[in-house]
Amino acid sequence: MPNSQINAAVLLSGGLDSATTLAIAMSQHRRCHCLSFDYGQRHRHELVAATKIAHALGADSHLTIPIDLAAFGGSALTDTIPVPKENLGDDIPVTYVPARNLVFLSLATAFAEVSGASEIWLGVTAVDYSGYPDCRPEFIAAFEHTANLATKAAVEGSALSICTPLIDLSKAEIIRRGTDLGIDYSMTHSCYDPDAVGRACGGCDSCLLRRAGFEAAGIPDPTLYALPA
Amino acid sequence: MPNSQINAAVLLSGGLDSATTLAIAMSQHRRCHCLSFDYGQRHRHELVAATKIAHALGADSHLTIPIDLAAFGGSALTDTIPVPKENLGDDIPVTYVPARNLVFLSLATAFAEVSGASEIWLGVTAVDYSGYPDCRPEFIAAFEHTANLATKAAVEGSALSICTPLIDLSKAEIIRRGTDLGIDYSMTHSCYDPDAVGRACGGCDSCLLRRAGFEAAGIPDPTLYALPA
Repeated sequence: MPNSQINAAVLLSGGLDSATTLAIAMSQHRRCHCLSFDYGQRHRHELVAATKIAHALGADSHLTIPIDLAAFGGSALTDTIPVPKENLGDDIPVTYVPARNLVFLSLATAFAEVSGASEIWLGVTAVDYSGYPDCRPEFIAAFEHTANLATKAAVEGSALSICTPLIDLSKAEIIRRGTDLGIDYSMTHSCYDPDAVGRACGGCDSCLLRRAGFEAAGIPDPTLYALPA
Repeated sequence: MPNSQINAAVLLSGGLDSATTLAIAMSQHRRCHCLSFDYGQRHRHELVAATKIAHALGADSHLTIPIDLAAFGGSALTDTIPVPKENLGDDIPVTYVPARNLVFLSLATAFAEVSGASEIWLGVTAVDYSGYPDCRPEFIAAFEHTANLATKAAVEGSALSICTPLIDLSKAEIIRRGTDLGIDYSMTHSCYDPDAVGRACGGCDSCLLRRAGFEAAGIPDPTLYALPA
């Protein structure tokens, strides 16, 4: 089996993109160590989804780390700011969580070093996305350079690569790719503002992107939405 | 008063270096918002010291964030690996915590964005230090570049600066500088392996650097050591 010895740290939110990223890493024969964050997000239902996905896709391990980003506030995802609906605009939205991917990638770098992983896989996309600055390729490249100066492993010669297989894919292309790899997307959770039983609202940025993606892919959307299309 | 409107996020461990960094920021009329991390370190006594220092030096605020780096393991500071004594060698020591400054600076970037700070102050030094890779100037410069690509604040034109006033100072120079600024160093805690009442061991890397610094500065060391010099 090619590459059978490569250990990968995979950031797994429980959403559609990170599930597809894990499926791609598995298809490339990585030994996948998944990492999720309980960061005070109002959509903590996604952590239940992450656990299911890691198991269903055959990841080697899955760790959920609590990190209190809500202590800082400043985001509709961790604060009392309402999640906007039907509102895909050009500005960076209030669901932006300050420096979230910077924090998550930094923790993943620590996790990778301890678990002997030479790759961090991350499901960012710069096509159908919410406009968050920390999803852009120039941020990812700068982070990779920084991480390779930060750790004992890097100083001792083990370079770390940040793998972003979705970065140039549209949401429809991501869904087609994942469907080809056999992902059951009913396991995944994208909504920023689910109801008490975890049902997607249907109207937040994340639901709108998901719905439009399935439609453009010509694949039935298995999601249960509280708000009909 | 010059610069009276500059908000600064100051990383405060409770040690000698970060206390001196805070004193320098205060002397430059920054409004200082201090940030400490409860990361599972065995020397949590330093968090008590951080609270005292923030208050004594007149910081605007002080927040301690729990972050479970011990969940990853891999360090004598968070794990069951013993802290070595009398052992200032050339290699990166086992007290290295994987990617610690990367994680701390990332969280400080989030904190700075939410609190409107345009500077992060950090007491790293590349002179009398333990050889950790994430204390080197090239790491700090790379991080600053990355942070300025990561945040909404940066995209909207508010650049973030990482300020490291101690980077080129020896431990003796740091102690002289802080003494000139009126710091009572008996408040600070450096030891990696204190006893139950918080008394410094006297023999770990951090104690050895501290002792040698006071001696070279010609200033009496106010620290209570369990192990006599």
